[in-house]
Amino acid sequence: MNHADLLADLNTPCLVLDEKVMLANIARLDGRMAGLGVALRPHLKTVKSVDAARHVMRNARAATVSTLREAEVFAASGVAEIFYAVGITPQKLPRVLALRATGCDLIVALDSPEQARAVAEASRIAGDPIPALLEIDSDAHRAGLDPASERLVEIGRILHEGGPELRGVFTHCGGSYDARGEAALRDYARRERDAVVAAAERLRDAGLPCPVVSVGSTPTAHFADDLSGVTEARPGVYAFHDLVMEGLGVCRIEDIAISVLATVIGHQRERGWTLVDAGWMAMSRDRGTANQPVDQGYGVVCDVEGKPIDGLIMIGANQEHGIIAQRPGSTLAAPDLPVGTTLRILPNHACATAAQFDGYHVIPADGSGELTYWPRFRGW
Amino acid sequence: MNHADLLADLNTPCLVLDEKVMLANIARLDGRMAGLGVALRPHLKTVKSVDAARHVMRNARAATVSTLREAEVFAASGVAEIFYAVGITPQKLPRVLALRATGCDLIVALDSPEQARAVAEASRIAGDPIPALLEIDSDAHRAGLDPASERLVEIGRILHEGGPELRGVFTHCGGSYDARGEAALRDYARRERDAVVAAAERLRDAGLPCPVVSVGSTPTAHFADDLSGVTEARPGVYAFHDLVMEGLGVCRIEDIAISVLATVIGHQRERGWTLVDAGWMAMSRDRGTANQPVDQGYGVVCDVEGKPIDGLIMIGANQEHGIIAQRPGSTLAAPDLPVGTTLRILPNHACATAAQFDGYHVIPADGSGELTYWPRFRGW
Repeated sequence: MNHADLLADLNTPCLVLDEKVMLANIARLDGRMAGLGVALRPHLKTVKSVDAARHVMRNARAATVSTLREAEVFAASGVAEIFYAVGITPQKLPRVLALRATGCDLIVALDSPEQARAVAEASRIAGDPIPALLEIDSDAHRAGLDPASERLVEIGRILHEGGPELRGVFTHCGGSYDARGEAALRDYARRERDAVVAAAERLRDAGLPCPVVSVGSTPTAHFADDLSGVTEARPGVYAFHDLVMEGLGVCRIEDIAISVLATVIGHQRERGWTLVDAGWMAMSRDRGTANQPVDQGYGVVCDVEGKPIDGLIMIGANQEHGIIAQRPGSTLAAPDLPVGTTLRILPNHACATAAQFDGYHVIPADGSGELTYWPRFRGW
Repeated sequence: MNHADLLADLNTPCLVLDEKVMLANIARLDGRMAGLGVALRPHLKTVKSVDAARHVMRNARAATVSTLREAEVFAASGVAEIFYAVGITPQKLPRVLALRATGCDLIVALDSPEQARAVAEASRIAGDPIPALLEIDSDAHRAGLDPASERLVEIGRILHEGGPELRGVFTHCGGSYDARGEAALRDYARRERDAVVAAAERLRDAGLPCPVVSVGSTPTAHFADDLSGVTEARPGVYAFHDLVMEGLGVCRIEDIAISVLATVIGHQRERGWTLVDAGWMAMSRDRGTANQPVDQGYGVVCDVEGKPIDGLIMIGANQEHGIIAQRPGSTLAAPDLPVGTTLRILPNHACATAAQFDGYHVIPADGSGELTYWPRFRGW
């Protein structure tokens, strides 16, 4: 069944997921990780859906999350081991313990002695050794410890000797999103690996355990050529991909699995504009391609079958209005898209755009000719 | 009761609304509109909450919305007249008619003959004259007709003679968000007025009715000094205000009624960074102050009582991490904010930030010492 017929009855704007494209993305990275001998601990912050996570977790037993709400929802859906990869606060430890008490092996993240002491105290009081991964800074991008710092061993010791469980180390090379070219991406992957492997060695040299050595980002997962010493990777956006990943060379346009279905609501023909009912409330305000070689505005415009319309992007967005036009500098004529025409817009950033919606309208991979709906959740 | 105690038990990040500040903002604009002799038709896309709308609508009988979902929710809550201010599509007319059949006077927006013909046909078939406002372009910013165009009268005639009800004209001077200085804001307010008043006169000269002459934006509503010929204004963000409005001179920092409560999760002290658990998922990706004279990053950082901490802004955001630091160029030292410290971050854009949350934790204006919760809704 063609997509025009499948999608004909949906209210716009809404979020469309092409299951077949998603399954191919998942299979591709699953294969890569298997080839590198590294376990996959997928980051479920992108999909935020139990139905989508079922596919993402096909070859994984443990997951990564960015909120305790995600941990709670995915634990309830049967994921037995979950890493909450954002620095823990003392206030959140009661929720951590409550979720662990249900049988989920929930692991926390930290990078300071004060956090380690708070986790140690909570572990002792509860009689439950909370496992923790130490965050390592591999690119001066966000949080984490210098693998050469004295504090690394100091914190490791507070955990190991104080009641919790020192489970290992992790890093996220967010700087890889700014990489240009394959060589730079391979270099970021090496930096991720080198930083956590060095940190793991220092802990082990100090007589401390470090079973888990974790790296994570979709670009580095696709370009790493050697992950010796690493035990797992935590990519997230790879299941859907997006224009930022396409701009980095991590995927092709046709690998982008989600799009926003929109309807033409008007024109300013003398300016070459077509207006649609998807604004930033639908696309999000993410402008992740703005600093890439090709700025895709608020998204690449496709026909209802999902085929890009040559040169057409969303050049501007108000809350519920998107302005579609030829890419600046293009000499192509604006196509004739009458009021009521449905289009599909590919997003800059899948995590941000998907979060604007309550669920996915799924074009099924089995070609059954019937849409399914996968609810998303949100909140903290 | 101080805010620290009131907010102590909330999970972070979450959205806090200071009701007293909101009520003062509402009273201020209500007074301005009364002084100008213009009715208020508040835009409820900002609050998206029946509880908040109750206050916003205190001196208004009719509302503006940006989605049919908003129209349906606010109609069910008792708002009798609602203007859906985004260009109508043929596909949406069954929902429009269904809502009108419940007794709500729902008005649609359009700016093309094809839309007018679709509305005319739907009106005739349903035996219900759908009222419409014609969108007028006052600043080459988005949708709308040139008030001097032949099409204006052509479309007016299709409506008036074809079955629907030509209710009037409206404009939104989105360009006012880029104004610098009071004179420029007054000028935008004049442009809004001049454009719709000219359009109304052309319709009336052609023997067509034009009872409603509507302008709308928070900046122009605060700076208009003469709205002769205008019957109503449609501002939205004024109830909450935000850093973009502060940057325009429309409000003061202390007039911003919403903030994101966040908790410190770590530091990179040698870089002067404090990390919090509010990233772009909480703040939104809106960078509306980026092109203003003072770029506020992802938000202005306040202590838990809501008082700005000198020079401190959110300079960067990942999905669930915010990076807080002194404003670039500042020579102030980074304050000591230990892990677990709660902060409040003022948003660039209230509409975008509030939309990231399921509801408001309301600090009550009556000083009762107990938080209330006002749910928000979303979707289309």
